Amino acid sequence: MAPPSDDSVPLPAAAISKLLVVIGAPWIRYHGDYKGLHIDLVWPGKDPVLGVDCVGTVSAALVTYASIQSLEPDLIINAGTAGGFKAKGAGIGDVYLASDVAFHDRRIPIPVFDMYGIGTRKTFATPNILKELNLKVGKLSTGDSLDMSPHDESAILNNDATVKDMEGAAVAYVADMFSTPAIFVKAVTDIVDGEKPTAEEFLQNLVAVAAALDKAVTEVVDFISGKCISDL
Amino acid sequence: MAPPSDDSVPLPAAAISKLLVVIGAPWIRYHGDYKGLHIDLVWPGKDPVLGVDCVGTVSAALVTYASIQSLEPDLIINAGTAGGFKAKGAGIGDVYLASDVAFHDRRIPIPVFDMYGIGTRKTFATPNILKELNLKVGKLSTGDSLDMSPHDESAILNNDATVKDMEGAAVAYVADMFSTPAIFVKAVTDIVDGEKPTAEEFLQNLVAVAAALDKAVTEVVDFISGKCISDL
Repeated sequence: MAPPSDDSVPLPAAAISKLLVVIGAPWIRYHGDYKGLHIDLVWPGKDPVLGVDCVGTVSAALVTYASIQSLEPDLIINAGTAGGFKAKGAGIGDVYLASDVAFHDRRIPIPVFDMYGIGTRKTFATPNILKELNLKVGKLSTGDSLDMSPHDESAILNNDATVKDMEGAAVAYVADMFSTPAIFVKAVTDIVDGEKPTAEEFLQNLVAVAAALDKAVTEVVDFISGKCISDL
Repeated sequence: MAPPSDDSVPLPAAAISKLLVVIGAPWIRYHGDYKGLHIDLVWPGKDPVLGVDCVGTVSAALVTYASIQSLEPDLIINAGTAGGFKAKGAGIGDVYLASDVAFHDRRIPIPVFDMYGIGTRKTFATPNILKELNLKVGKLSTGDSLDMSPHDESAILNNDATVKDMEGAAVAYVADMFSTPAIFVKAVTDIVDGEKPTAEEFLQNLVAVAAALDKAVTEVVDFISGKCISDL
């Protein structure tokens, strides 16, 4: 879960199907060696019927699980876009490394089940990445909707989140289950507490912000190169 | 995903760990032969830190996927409890066979992504089970919250749902990905459009309704015994 290596060449179409993580699932894997690291770039692919990207927690959890089982990664980098809260200092194009993740749309008002639903987790600590790279730090809140209902908003406030995505906490849940270190690099495509409609702002900024994310993740991978997990 | 056979004996504690679906995951599998059928009863288990049942779509999707991969079932029976809508004729203790499933808390207001989020699916058709057994038929809507926000309510109305659970559509999504037939047997523990708070009513009725569910699923399994999938 990191970008393809700089020296990668476009794969011939015939090779793509061989790189499915699991036969039958739309999940795609690219892989290669880059600066001494073996990198598997995995993404949930496109819905085979509807043709849109398989966003959201269910797909993210499944592909994380399948990847851990088949690829046994030392580290997961969940890279993606997010909404940001300007009240918490986020701006378009900012790239965050999440300190904590939690869900904001799993309300189970029964004692202990409520905590399970929210699913707050500390992410794998990488103090040296933070020291060396120009990334912001904030808490990430995850839900399966692109918009934000009043109930979501209240939960996001309780989660003290600066950024909001649709996958992070699900990836963290699965990574935690198998004790795989995971970090979360999220680039802000839209301001949730701003004036513009989320879907419109998201689509408007997606290309430029994806480039910022690409750059940030490449810097993270470059930093990791040659180091032990405990040195991050 | 069906009840343990009538002739099952309690498993010694030492054997339970061997029946984990996957090492590291809390998912539990019981299995045995019953009236000529091989039955694997799989459930997501308990959260290893919090000790509560792993409810919701992420756990349901993961354990469904792991089960399909390792057990290659001919048929999945997703049995569980649900909230019912009295406006649609549901009463406490009613057992439904879902005709359709969909999500009600995955709002993605971008064309086509909206349909992916809702994820409506027809379930595997079992006309003979419906003809022979005393089950109600209705549409099932799935979300990760036990309560129902106004946004959820509007989506549930759009899904034309009679019953509401926290797993069904996620199980259906994974089953569909691997072309595994799946049916959904849901017993009503609480009336969503009634007077009582959901959590209270759910806990009050859980034991009695679980017995009704047990009876219904046993009848379904008895009916399946000796038949081909296409005869259901």
